[in-house]
Amino acid sequence: MNRSQLIAQIEYKSSFLCVGLDPDLDKIPAHLKSEPDPIFSFCKEIVEETADYAVAYKPNIAFFEALGPKGWESLQKVLDIIPKEIFTIADAKRGDIGNTSKLYAKAFFESMDFDSITVAPYMGADSVTPFLEFENKWVILLALTSNAGSQDFQTIEDGHCKPLFHSVIEKSQEWGSPENMMYVVGATRGELIGEVRTLAPDHFFLVPGVGAQGGSLAEVARYGMNANCSLLVNSSRGIIYASNGKDFAKAARNEAKKLQEEMSVLLEKHRK
Amino acid sequence: MNRSQLIAQIEYKSSFLCVGLDPDLDKIPAHLKSEPDPIFSFCKEIVEETADYAVAYKPNIAFFEALGPKGWESLQKVLDIIPKEIFTIADAKRGDIGNTSKLYAKAFFESMDFDSITVAPYMGADSVTPFLEFENKWVILLALTSNAGSQDFQTIEDGHCKPLFHSVIEKSQEWGSPENMMYVVGATRGELIGEVRTLAPDHFFLVPGVGAQGGSLAEVARYGMNANCSLLVNSSRGIIYASNGKDFAKAARNEAKKLQEEMSVLLEKHRK
Repeated sequence: MNRSQLIAQIEYKSSFLCVGLDPDLDKIPAHLKSEPDPIFSFCKEIVEETADYAVAYKPNIAFFEALGPKGWESLQKVLDIIPKEIFTIADAKRGDIGNTSKLYAKAFFESMDFDSITVAPYMGADSVTPFLEFENKWVILLALTSNAGSQDFQTIEDGHCKPLFHSVIEKSQEWGSPENMMYVVGATRGELIGEVRTLAPDHFFLVPGVGAQGGSLAEVARYGMNANCSLLVNSSRGIIYASNGKDFAKAARNEAKKLQEEMSVLLEKHRK
Repeated sequence: MNRSQLIAQIEYKSSFLCVGLDPDLDKIPAHLKSEPDPIFSFCKEIVEETADYAVAYKPNIAFFEALGPKGWESLQKVLDIIPKEIFTIADAKRGDIGNTSKLYAKAFFESMDFDSITVAPYMGADSVTPFLEFENKWVILLALTSNAGSQDFQTIEDGHCKPLFHSVIEKSQEWGSPENMMYVVGATRGELIGEVRTLAPDHFFLVPGVGAQGGSLAEVARYGMNANCSLLVNSSRGIIYASNGKDFAKAARNEAKKLQEEMSVLLEKHRK
């Protein structure tokens, strides 16, 4: 999917919601566990009920990988039932030297047909650029994450008081453009999102940390939204585990709808 | 496997050789391609012929993952035929927030039974510590890699002229010990290995970049070896693709033997 198609989706749905698919066998409703492929059944119902409100789905690859070869089959089936106009993110946080990254890219962009993959920046240019050689495919590079450990290295300042995540954003703009690269920018501190927006005025940000991790949607929009929105705000647990009864998919729909309505107001406000 | 078992293997075999298993369908001998599982057949013969000289095997997960669910089955089969006294490394470069890292840890340490996994440090403590909660299992943390892109971020100096990879090594010693944590330290510049040895006197280093990437074994030993050796030097392409004819496994055996003999001399020299 290219950038203008993604922007068109956001306008059409008045939403910048990404639904994170973290299907945990210990958390999905009990009645699904007798299904032949419980993980798939769970994700299928979630996708069907939330597709009206979401512009992106982000399967967390660990949850599928943890189930072995069967998990990868479930992942492919989930990918197959996501409507084509919705952006897909393989949340895999891969990154290795050139020839190996190329294989990861082939796995997620060719064998499977994801639109994008999350990538870790630590190994530098030749670990990221192999993912950028695929047309209409995207790298979503970790810049400033929303977890506690983000303070261990990402905020270390160099001799000119420039934190590492600034260096990541500046350097990586030599490798990709707003047409094929996004950044992961955590929602836990709004003013930091503003810093990143100054460094990357046109790039999309994938923003985790709203909801369960405590970030505020209004603050994300205030600091991060630009003329094209250029935000994908992710919610996983808050939506997919809104209920663990037979009504789980309807409950997910309600939560997604609530977020979409909030997003619609923020988009409208930004237009003025 | 625990540290003293690994050290005992190194002494017993007079070797600190790790054989990297990067089974590429485009590079394996033509006669294997008609086998039901060419990747497995290739790795099986390589392992059988090199096991006398290797103390560790490092399957590069990307090469298996690129083949979809079948690739994961091949990986499990390869793991099953590696002799139990040989250390196994899942070269997966994983790393995500807490609950997700825990799932990756379960995938590689429980569903499969790897001794260790390579982990990227960018997301900090809570992305690494979930891997350290498994007895006799190891994290091999990326510190200073051997690729060109390692210069992009790993060597950025903070306000006290401390490069990022130093911070990674120092900080991570609060999370793990020489009993459950190793570091990836590239072989391309010997004096940098010496720097890391000063910062982490007792930890094992996994050293890529000898052979195809140009590093020298003697230099690695000179700067990195300690009283327990504490080195695992990896060679992938130089061994597994020594020949692409029917003699590929014998050719691999010869290359592994050559490296082991060189290592034996270096171990002997260091003892004096």
